[in-house]
Amino acid sequence: MKRFAIEFSYDGTNFFGYQGQPNVRTVQGELENALEKIFKERIYTQVAGRTDAGVHANGQVAAFNCPIERLTARDIKNALNANLPRDIYVKKAWEVDKNFNPRFKAKKRIYHYLIKTDERNIFLRNFVWHFKYELNIEKMRIAARFLEGEHDFSSFKKGNDRKNPIRTIFRIRIIRLRTNLILIRVEGISFLRSMVRNIVGSLVKVGLGQWPPEKIKEVLELRSRQEAAGTAPPHGLYLYKVIF
Amino acid sequence: MKRFAIEFSYDGTNFFGYQGQPNVRTVQGELENALEKIFKERIYTQVAGRTDAGVHANGQVAAFNCPIERLTARDIKNALNANLPRDIYVKKAWEVDKNFNPRFKAKKRIYHYLIKTDERNIFLRNFVWHFKYELNIEKMRIAARFLEGEHDFSSFKKGNDRKNPIRTIFRIRIIRLRTNLILIRVEGISFLRSMVRNIVGSLVKVGLGQWPPEKIKEVLELRSRQEAAGTAPPHGLYLYKVIF
Repeated sequence: MKRFAIEFSYDGTNFFGYQGQPNVRTVQGELENALEKIFKERIYTQVAGRTDAGVHANGQVAAFNCPIERLTARDIKNALNANLPRDIYVKKAWEVDKNFNPRFKAKKRIYHYLIKTDERNIFLRNFVWHFKYELNIEKMRIAARFLEGEHDFSSFKKGNDRKNPIRTIFRIRIIRLRTNLILIRVEGISFLRSMVRNIVGSLVKVGLGQWPPEKIKEVLELRSRQEAAGTAPPHGLYLYKVIF
Repeated sequence: MKRFAIEFSYDGTNFFGYQGQPNVRTVQGELENALEKIFKERIYTQVAGRTDAGVHANGQVAAFNCPIERLTARDIKNALNANLPRDIYVKKAWEVDKNFNPRFKAKKRIYHYLIKTDERNIFLRNFVWHFKYELNIEKMRIAARFLEGEHDFSSFKKGNDRKNPIRTIFRIRIIRLRTNLILIRVEGISFLRSMVRNIVGSLVKVGLGQWPPEKIKEVLELRSRQEAAGTAPPHGLYLYKVIF
């Protein structure tokens, strides 16, 4: 049986997160509904990174078996886009090895977080964190350095997450895209639940001058969720790219 | 009694157009609901330009009487933003003359229409017209010249519009904002219903090479809606600015 991977984007605004759940609209649910329409049978999918409600994806990756042998990658892309709702779009499909599971094969996951610091722009309300105070990005960059590398990220996990808290962040870049638009780009192998949003919440404390950059090192070393700042809202976050 | 004008933006996606109507969600309805919450009485508003369902505004202008004498323009802006839904935002408020009616006082209305010609971007699906063919903007600029000035725009009106079809377009600019993002900026005193979208639909025919630029002159002179091309979709259109 053939197996395909797809790279797809979605606007997370109207989804109750990625993972399929009964009675709510999820990205996985819609994807598997579209596959069922195409193949007339339930097709199960594996995904590179589950995202929370309101979180977007520019380049999420999923994989599934294809029960119709003659279909090409091009057919898969077209058939899915014809059957998916308007807030999910398949950018690319390609054939993969029988054992390909994007969750375990991913070598790098890149998340983007967008913060806008001037007046509200109605057209971006679901796509950036509007934050009305100016941020000192030089200080945020100094703080971000402490998070790079392999660490116990217990201070930045979701409260109830029991997974191994040791993770590796390759790099955090903080880029001023426009005068009042800041991109925080976080590259790592894998992340704990809410980890990127918790990191952003704490970096913003530094950007505001409420914390010195070194406080991030202290928070990290205390390995306790209570030490870090609040979680940044989901709608500024994008699973930007998964690299295999 | 004091009178205020407001400049406000809205995302037209989830509105059944600007004008208040029973049983549907309209921008005017939401604005007057917010005013009623603030003033505990129904306040009627006048507006510079009614927009159709799905059409956005960057700088719509409305005016209304204020029954509470001590309120300042700053208070009006803040009170409205605290009471309006998330898809309407007041950018500015200022006191105006008792007789100020934005519909009749407007000296210029500027509309923007955005067309994107590369692959669908899920985050822009409600904000640009995705159009998968390349457009020749040089030819579109030649065609647009025929529409500038005072003309009978019957060929570009909505079928059932009985208003005087003589209108003045000061200028049409066609600007490549990015490689695959085209802005059509139309400046005039006032417009017939659907007029900008009908003009865009016909200019796109020229951009595609289906019509020579001179065909626009011919269509205009025939003064018949049947001669022009189809109407461009509403979600690429913005009432960008009203000048008094």
